[in-house]
Order: sequence, then structure tokens, then C-alpha cells
Amino acid sequence: MLRHVVLFGFKDETSLEQIAEVEAGFSALPGQVYSIKDFEWGIDVSVEQNAQGFSHCFVVTFEDEAGRDAYLPHPAHQKFVTLVRKVLKQSLVIDYWSN
Amino acid sequence: MLRHVVLFGFKDETSLEQIAEVEAGFSALPGQVYSIKDFEWGIDVSVEQNAQGFSHCFVVTFEDEAGRDAYLPHPAHQKFVTLVRKVLKQSLVIDYWSN
Repeated sequence: MLRHVVLFGFKDETSLEQIAEVEAGFSALPGQVYSIKDFEWGIDVSVEQNAQGFSHCFVVTFEDEAGRDAYLPHPAHQKFVTLVRKVLKQSLVIDYWSN
Repeated sequence: MLRHVVLFGFKDETSLEQIAEVEAGFSALPGQVYSIKDFEWGIDVSVEQNAQGFSHCFVVTFEDEAGRDAYLPHPAHQKFVTLVRKVLKQSLVIDYWSN
């Protein structure tokens, strides 16, 4: 399976309501994009002080590149990207094949 | 389950052999540290040009904080940390509770 790991760090002025809206928006995508085979996310609880300003981790799983390539330009994903861009300080995306 | 996501970016002068040593060293930890319940890793294959200089993603799964807290100071983990520090340009760690 192809794992798509997305990290978010929000602008300081982002409200809890805006963060909840992002969390809900991302969590809604598996119901809107057929190629998402698994989805999980959570808030950073690490103890090593090495999260580099990121507070949220989302892991989206696809069966293959075709699944990811259907997701990235999907209207539901693009709408979410527009929403999240307004409140993001930083983001990071790394994909890998799970073994 | 508690997911422990680790990203590595290597110094430019790091050889393929040194990177393979890191990959093998990390992959050996589940056999050495009892509290690791699941482990997977891979090399970045993302297409969004937003991996921020990271090339490797490792996901270590623990049952709970006690599992992580047994892992971090474990001699096998500490030995691995010493090895990897020599070749790392950057690292990032984020933990979250999988839902």
C-alpha cells in the first residue's frame, strides 16, 4: 500500500474552531474520494521536542499511485486544500510504500 | 495504538552503503525492543515537492506511552541513534494516537 503522510503546523492566530474545521474536513475526504483505502490522524504527543513546528499528522493510504493520482486533483481534495491554506504556517508531505 | 513517525534527511556526502546501514539498523529494532508492535518504513516517492528535504519515513507503533518510554532509552535504540546521528542532516519526530 502507498502511505501518504501529511504534516500540518498552523499559524499562531488560528482558532480552535478553525483547526477543528480542518480536522473535520480532512476526515471527511475518505467518504468523498473512493481511492482512499485507509485514513488515520492525530495530534502530536511526542516527547522528543523534535516535531519542528508541526502539530498534526494525517496518514492517507492508497492501493497504488493511481489511487493517489486520483486523489490529488479530486474536487473534494482541492476544496479542502483551499480551506487549509488559509490557516497553515507550514506543511510537509512524504509518501512511501509500506512493506 | 501510539504511532511514532520518524523522518530522516541525510547529509549530501552520505554514501548509499551508510544509508543502507541506517535502514538495516532501524529495521532490526523491532527484533530487539519488545514494545514495538508494528514497524514499517519507506523512501519518499511523493510527487508534491513538499518533503522539505526528508527522504525516509519510518513508522514505529507502540501499544501505549509505556511502550514508547521503554523504547526511547533502550540500549539498542540508543546505539542506533549514535550510528544515525553521524550521517543525518535533519530529523523530525511526531507521535499520535491512531483512531
